[in-house]
Formats: sequence, structure tokens, C-alpha cells
Amino acid sequence: MSDDSQGLVDKAQAWWNTRIIDIHPGEIGIRGYPIQELIGRISFPDMIWLMTRGELPSKGQSKLLEAALVASVDHGPHAPSIAIARMAVTCGVDLNNAVASGVNVLGDIHGGPGQQCMELYEEVRAASGNDLAASTDRVLDSYIARNGKIIPGFGHRFHPVDPRVAPLFALVESASRDGTVSGNYARIGREVEAALRRRTGKAIPMNIDGITAVIFSELGFPPPMGRGLFILSRSVGILSHAWEQTQLNQRIKGPMPKEIPYTYSGPERRSLDPDR
Amino acid sequence: MSDDSQGLVDKAQAWWNTRIIDIHPGEIGIRGYPIQELIGRISFPDMIWLMTRGELPSKGQSKLLEAALVASVDHGPHAPSIAIARMAVTCGVDLNNAVASGVNVLGDIHGGPGQQCMELYEEVRAASGNDLAASTDRVLDSYIARNGKIIPGFGHRFHPVDPRVAPLFALVESASRDGTVSGNYARIGREVEAALRRRTGKAIPMNIDGITAVIFSELGFPPPMGRGLFILSRSVGILSHAWEQTQLNQRIKGPMPKEIPYTYSGPERRSLDPDR
Amino acid sequence: MSDDSQGLVDKAQAWWNTRIIDIHPGEIGIRGYPIQELIGRISFPDMIWLMTRGELPSKGQSKLLEAALVASVDHGPHAPSIAIARMAVTCGVDLNNAVASGVNVLGDIHGGPGQQCMELYEEVRAASGNDLAASTDRVLDSYIARNGKIIPGFGHRFHPVDPRVAPLFALVESASRDGTVSGNYARIGREVEAALRRRTGKAIPMNIDGITAVIFSELGFPPPMGRGLFILSRSVGILSHAWEQTQLNQRIKGPMPKEIPYTYSGPERRSLDPDR
Amino acid sequence: MSDDSQGLVDKAQAWWNTRIIDIHPGEIGIRGYPIQELIGRISFPDMIWLMTRGELPSKGQSKLLEAALVASVDHGPHAPSIAIARMAVTCGVDLNNAVASGVNVLGDIHGGPGQQCMELYEEVRAASGNDLAASTDRVLDSYIARNGKIIPGFGHRFHPVDPRVAPLFALVESASRDGTVSGNYARIGREVEAALRRRTGKAIPMNIDGITAVIFSELGFPPPMGRGLFILSRSVGILSHAWEQTQLNQRIKGPMPKEIPYTYSGPERRSLDPDR
Repeated sequence: MSDDSQGLVDKAQAWWNTRIIDIHPGEIGIRGYPIQELIGRISFPDMIWLMTRGELPSKGQSKLLEAALVASVDHGPHAPSIAIARMAVTCGVDLNNAVASGVNVLGDIHGGPGQQCMELYEEVRAASGNDLAASTDRVLDSYIARNGKIIPGFGHRFHPVDPRVAPLFALVESASRDGTVSGNYARIGREVEAALRRRTGKAIPMNIDGITAVIFSELGFPPPMGRGLFILSRSVGILSHAWEQTQLNQRIKGPMPKEIPYTYSGPERRSLDPDR
Repeated sequence: MSDDSQGLVDKAQAWWNTRIIDIHPGEIGIRGYPIQELIGRISFPDMIWLMTRGELPSKGQSKLLEAALVASVDHGPHAPSIAIARMAVTCGVDLNNAVASGVNVLGDIHGGPGQQCMELYEEVRAASGNDLAASTDRVLDSYIARNGKIIPGFGHRFHPVDPRVAPLFALVESASRDGTVSGNYARIGREVEAALRRRTGKAIPMNIDGITAVIFSELGFPPPMGRGLFILSRSVGILSHAWEQTQLNQRIKGPMPKEIPYTYSGPERRSLDPDR
Repeated sequence: MSDDSQGLVDKAQAWWNTRIIDIHPGEIGIRGYPIQELIGRISFPDMIWLMTRGELPSKGQSKLLEAALVASVDHGPHAPSIAIARMAVTCGVDLNNAVASGVNVLGDIHGGPGQQCMELYEEVRAASGNDLAASTDRVLDSYIARNGKIIPGFGHRFHPVDPRVAPLFALVESASRDGTVSGNYARIGREVEAALRRRTGKAIPMNIDGITAVIFSELGFPPPMGRGLFILSRSVGILSHAWEQTQLNQRIKGPMPKEIPYTYSGPERRSLDPDR
Repeated sequence: MSDDSQGLVDKAQAWWNTRIIDIHPGEIGIRGYPIQELIGRISFPDMIWLMTRGELPSKGQSKLLEAALVASVDHGPHAPSIAIARMAVTCGVDLNNAVASGVNVLGDIHGGPGQQCMELYEEVRAASGNDLAASTDRVLDSYIARNGKIIPGFGHRFHPVDPRVAPLFALVESASRDGTVSGNYARIGREVEAALRRRTGKAIPMNIDGITAVIFSELGFPPPMGRGLFILSRSVGILSHAWEQTQLNQRIKGPMPKEIPYTYSGPERRSLDPDR
């Protein structure tokens, strides 16, 4: 019996095994580093990298990650994640609940294109032999056959040219020149852009998801972390808008002012069967 | 050591102690009742009562609870809880996430008035001696001094008369006549309504929160369960709207059609300090 | 300009089009029925059906739905949805946030098997000609090739026989005899069970997901609503456990008592590079 | 009619008014700055400050904010926010849902002490005339009378001395010496610590919430943003643990290994009244 008990305790301890953080009274170790050695010495993006990757980044890697985090914080109150957080605080919940409500909808369509674009790039990279253009065309054929015509990371329903792409691309190119990154995914991104122009005859330029997918792939993050890092960035916008909304005097803020009614297109007025 | 281990195991088991459900291989007991004896024999409102209260309700209690659950399912897509769930599914999340997003905003303002009204009724009940009118006035004075002029459960920004109140009130009165409930909270609710008319000179009629607060109080639920039961009811509307939205072909549905832009009232365009 | 404005207003109104609910001052219509005609006259399961399907169910349909809703409310505090809701309330959030936290994790694995089982049954139904056994075998071969050996709705890691299945199956058979339902999906469910026994040589009996999938399919619900209805049912358990937890005196309740530490298996203690 | 329509459109636009972000095709302005001028030039903490405060911070302000953000990312898998996110991913939801589930429980008790401590400091600051010690004692008397003996920001149930405090305090003192901050809240924090020792006779040292409350107050953030900034920091830990958990092979991970059952202390097995 006693041995069984010890076995159960061991099992319980192992149930919450982690390689991230070690805590003892008076001690907190992050990936092996005592927290007091990190505070004031590493940047917030360094910490994000250390927590998610296990080691500290080089200065160049950290700067590239930081630029991507800065670029994606917000895209206005019409984005569902932002609108939902603003509506939430008017319903009498706290900031943590409002931020959670916004983050919760960063799903496959609203928060997933960066991740999907990283998967596409990876497919191109795995397929590419000597001829990048040919393999990109092949992968796009296959991708479109499986997923339809919308290519994640390219084209934007609002911006003809996404103003966040050029400065981020310049940073990747610079990081490629100084050896911080290989530049392979930057080339793949540009090739996808070129291939889309070849097959449609018009420009479908890289958007914020396409360029952050380049950066996160160059930095060695796996595709699901593309969504993960976007969440950290967009949380800043979600929090800022929720906070701004709390300063206003609105209660139970719906999607539109109540003077604009919604449309009802269901059945005409009717009564219950009297025999029911 | 072995004794210590057994102590830890005991502690771990006790950590998740419940009086609600007992499970063993092949057996599920709900408040002591084998699940197979309940299925097909008790109603869904009976089960809600059994789970939250510990015992089964009488037939009359169950019918009254059921009527309140039926009444509160929906108040249209302009309600934030409903709008958020509809927006959520267009972002590529599943129904459980969409329902959670809607339920999450049933906070103090959007989901709390029923609970607050139950607290108000309870305050009146505790204060009332021989003269219900006088004690209601005293409690309202104190309530308004603490919380401002909005009395939860009375008045509606949209309905001059809330169509859900009359049929629910009739059911309470009938239940009071047959002894299912005492009728004390129905009297208190009516007295609050009368007192509000006395002090404002106009009708501020009981709304859905005011009448469900009467019902849940008559049935012996504590105030926080007023919100809890409302959550169960409104979840039906949240789910139904989320499901309807999935049938439409919208992606990343914001609060308004994109042809209507939002207003920006922040600083004019400016540049970073070049010395930064 | 004025015409454009009217067009925008029309577009805004249409943006929140619904066939579920129509509201005007003093009037609330649910699928065409004035709410005051429904309150006290239809059951809560009737309302769930009306909201999600558009019409009222027959008495037999409603009873079958009700039995399934009663059966799935809870499976104990070790289920993540329940445990999370209990932990949530100890963190200082309200019941709506706690319920949302629990519902949010009813994802593909925790809340999806009923939906997946309905898809499987539908595949069998679509494939079946004269020989149900042969087509079930074919569909299972294909299903396992695509999804692996776990068949949603069959087998249980805890219950050798799930005690909820027999009473629910008896109700379906009775509803089939009286013409409420066709019985086609009950036959398919039994055939899947038989086929699993044929290919494994042992009993892998239908579980709660398998039998509710039979019921919801017999009643004409589409597969995603299998998850939707499960959410409504399980919300009762989530709420009940969250409420029970609020009665106890625990703050920031973690998964295990703090006397049982977790295991750390990351890097040994190390220091920052002094040149960093 | 046309004028009315224009009025409605104006109202709809104003409904989503913001001072944070301005978007036009090809242009994104954050607080007036074109996004392309910010990317690669400002740090992530700079962006957090700009978004939440409206202006850019000085270099010293930004470094202090950054240190606080670095310090609070994680406190191990026994923290409910972290445990919940880890459990969530095993239920088949995506990273955004898992992060939202964790953030959602950063409520008054789990995520609120920093905010509450800022309120306490502010109360001391407002009350303090010439004698900081005396006014601190008075405010603490009043605080304890209203809220009980637990003082947010001081004492820790696990760490005798919180290892994050010393390095953060040193940074505040340095920032005070160089004029980045006033040092007023650092003095108040130390005085609260001294007062607690005076009245209890033992050390109840400042913890992470107490020191970040000093920093955020020194930097001019309002108390609710204490929780807001903590959310941004802890999201890094929540994401990292959720991601680590996805690498393991666990399905529907409950709070404890299933070999350790929970305790049931409800009614004994019983049967429905046969007359029911």
C-alpha cells in the first residue's frame, strides 16, 4: 500500500511536468536562468523567445522578432477581435475577460493566415530542388486544389499595398545579409508573390501575414507559433481598445447604434396550435 | 515516508471533493440517483434543479422554473452576447468557442440585473415588518443612494411594457394560490413597482429581470444563481444565432458592413523624432 | 448623397439579418410566435428545438431530445470542462466567466465525439444499399484509414458499459415503434457496434456520444448541432460545479494541492553570458 | 428621409470612434504615426506604451516597463491560468482558445492584486501630508477594516522573499536617481512594508505585485492598467505552456492523473420515488 501511494504521488508530480520553469521557495528559474539575472538585462522579445524556444536569441534574431511584434498590434475597431473586446467591457466584465473574449476569436480565419502561410512556405521549401519557380507553381497548384483560391499571406481586401510589408521586408533582407537568417523564406515569399502574378496577371502583393510568416519561418518558429506570436502582438491592440472603451460612457454596447434596427426575415406572426 | 505518501494521496483526492456526482466504472450517480433511473423520467428543468440544489423539485416548482428558462432565451442580434457569438463563428472558431464568447460577456451589466434584483428583493424582505410599502421606500432610498437611479429589474430602454412579464406573473400567482410558492416575493416585486411610480410619477414597469428575480427568489435560489439560470437560458439563443450565422457566407464579420467606416478622432499624422 | 446614405442604412440593417427573432417595442416574436403565447405552454426542450430548428417539435420528438439533454449534464470534476470552471471561480471571476471557461474547452476532442459520430453514421447511411453490414464494414475501413483506430461514440476509457446507453436506447426504440423516428440511425449504431466486435473480437460498446448521436440524427439535427446540444447539456454541470466551488473557501485553486509539487525537467541552473 | 439616413450613417460611424488607430487603403496610423515609421525603430514595450497611453515613452520609462513585463511571465503550471491553458489544448481547441481560457481567469484574485496594490498606494499618496508613516498607518487601518487582513502586493504564500523584487526595486531606484520617475511610489511601497512589520512584528515583504504596482504607478498608469499590463506579460507564459503541452501526447488532460480519483461526499445511493 505504501509503495502504491508513493507511486501515485510520483505520477501526480509527473502529470504537470514542464521544461520551462522551476520554482522553489525564494527561487524562480526560467529555462535554467534565475529570474533575478534576467530582469533588467534581457528585453521582452528576448523573454518571449526564451520562454517559447528554450534558449536566448541573438541580438539580430531578437530585433527581427520585435519588429514583427510591433507591426501586428492593431487593425482597427472593425476587426472582430477588437470590436468584441470593446463590446465586452460595456457588459460589466473585467479587462482580463474582455481581452480573453478578443483573443478567443483569433481562430483559423481571423488569426490563422500567418500560420497557414508558414505551412505553405514550408511546403514550397520541402519541394524545391534547383528550380524554385517551378516548384512554387507546383505547390500552389496543389494548395489551390485543396484549399481554394485564397492564398494566406497574399492580397488584402482593404489595402492595395499593405504598408507594413516594405519595412519588415527590408529588415529581413538586412538580417539575411548579415547572416542572422538564411534568407530562404524571404526568397520563397517573393517567389509565391511572383507566381501569383504569373497566374492571375495582376499583383496580389504580400500582406502582413505573408511577411510575418517569412520572419517567423526565418527565425525557426514552427507554424502554430505563427498564430501564437500574433496573439501576443494583437493582445496589445485588444487591451488598448478595451481600455479606451472603459473611458466612454456606454452600457451594453451592441454592434450598431440602436437607432439602426436589424432585419428580421423569418416567419410571419403566428399562434400556437390551440390543441397543443 | 509511506505514511506521508498516503497523506498526500488523501489530500489530492479531497482536493476535488464534490457532493454532486459520484462515478465508478459502469456507475454514475447524480446527487445519489443512478443516472439510468433519471433518464426519460425527469425533465431537463428537473435535472437543472437537482444538479444545482441537491434535491428534485416538485412538479409545480419545476414548471415555474421551466417558464422562466423559456422566457429569457433571446433578445435579438443587437445584444452583445448574441452579436459576439455570431461574429465569433465567422472568425473560424468552433461552436463551443462561439458560445463561450457570448456567455463570457453576461457580466454585471448584461447578465447581472436579475441577480441584483434578487438582492434588492431580499433586502426588502429582510427589512419589512408590518408595513411593506414603508420598508420598500426605505430600502429603495438606501439602494439608490448606494447604486444610483437605475433599479435592476424595472424599466426597459426598448419595451414600454415587457411582453414577458404578464404571462410569467400569472404563473407565479397561480403557484402562490396552490401553495407551490409563498407569494412573498411577488408582493415585494409589485411593491417596488408601486414605489417607483410613487416617487417618479410615472410607470417604470417590471421587466424580464424583475419577474425572473421574483420567480427564482420564490423558488429559493440564492441571488448569484439568478445569473446562473439566466446563463443556461440565454445559451440557447447564443447557440441558435451562432448556428444560423454559420449557414451564411461571411468571413471575419465585423460589427458593421465595411462600407461604413469608423471614426478616428486621435492625433493628426505625425513623424517620429528623427533623433530617437 | 442621400440615396447613398439610405443604401448604407439598408446595408447596415441587413448585416444583422436573422430568421430567429423579431423585436419591436412591446413585442418579441420567436420564429413568428409571440413570446407571451409560448411562456408556460411549451417546455424548455421545445424552446431549444424551436430556436435551433425553426418549428416546434412533436411531443415525442421533444421527449427524446429532453432525455438526451438530461443524460449528458456531468461526468465529474476530473473532466477538464468541469475542473476549469471550478478553478476559474477561485480566481475571482464571475459565474458567467467560469461557465464560459468550461464551455470553451468542449473542443474537437472533449466536446466533438458526438458530432463526429453523427458524421460517421451519416456516411454509413449514405453508403448503405441492401446490405447494412457490408457497407458499415466498408465505411469503417475507410474511416479508420483516415482517422485512426478510435471510433467516436464507441468504447470508454472508464466505463466497461456506459450506464446512460441502455435507457436512452430503449427510448429510441420506443420512439421508433410509435413512428416518432425512423429507427434508421439506431440500426446503424447497433451495426457499427457489431462491426467493431467482428473486427476486434471483443465488445467496444456504444457510449454516451454514440447513443446521443443516434438520437440527434434520428431527430434530424445536423452533426455540428450534436456538439451544440451537448454544450447546452454540459453547461448545467459546469454551472453546478462552479456554484458548488464558490461555497468552499479556496483561493486560486490550482490543479493539485500545493503539497504535491510539479516536476521540472528543463536545463540545470545557469547564468547569462556576462558579455551579453 | 435622406437627411435622416445621413444622420444614421453619421451615428453608425461615430459608434466606433477611436483615438488609437486610423486606417485608409494603404495607410495605418497608430496614434498619428504611420506604421511604417514605427516598425524596426520602436521597441515592443514602446508600442505597448504608445497604444495604451497615446504618446511614446522616454527611453528610461520604456526600460522600466520592459523589466516589469519580463518579470511576470510565468509562475509555474500550478497557477490556474497556466494549468487551464495546458488542459485546454488537450481538449482539441486551438492556441488562441487556450490562451483566452488562461487569460480569462486572471480575475480579481488571480490577476487583480497588482491593480489593488496600485489603488492602495494611491490612497496613501492622497492621504499623506508631512508624515508618511502616520498616514500609511491610517490608510492601512482603513484598508484592513474594509478588505480584511490580506494586503495586496505584500507577503507570499510560497516565497519567503520573492526573488523578483530586489532587481526590480534597484531599477526603480536608479530611475528615480536619474529623474525618470519621482520615486514617490517606491517610498510608499517601502513604507507599507515597514508599517506591516510594525503592526505584525514580522516581515511581510513586498512581492511581485507590490513592486510592479510601484513601477506602474511611478510610470503614471492608472490602477486597472496594472491588471492590463500583467495580462500582456502572463500571456507569454500561458502561450509557452500551452505550446509545450501540445508537444506531449495527452488527450482530455484533467487536473490529476486518473489513477487518483476524486472524493464524493454527497448523498448515498437512492431511487426515484416510484409515484413520481
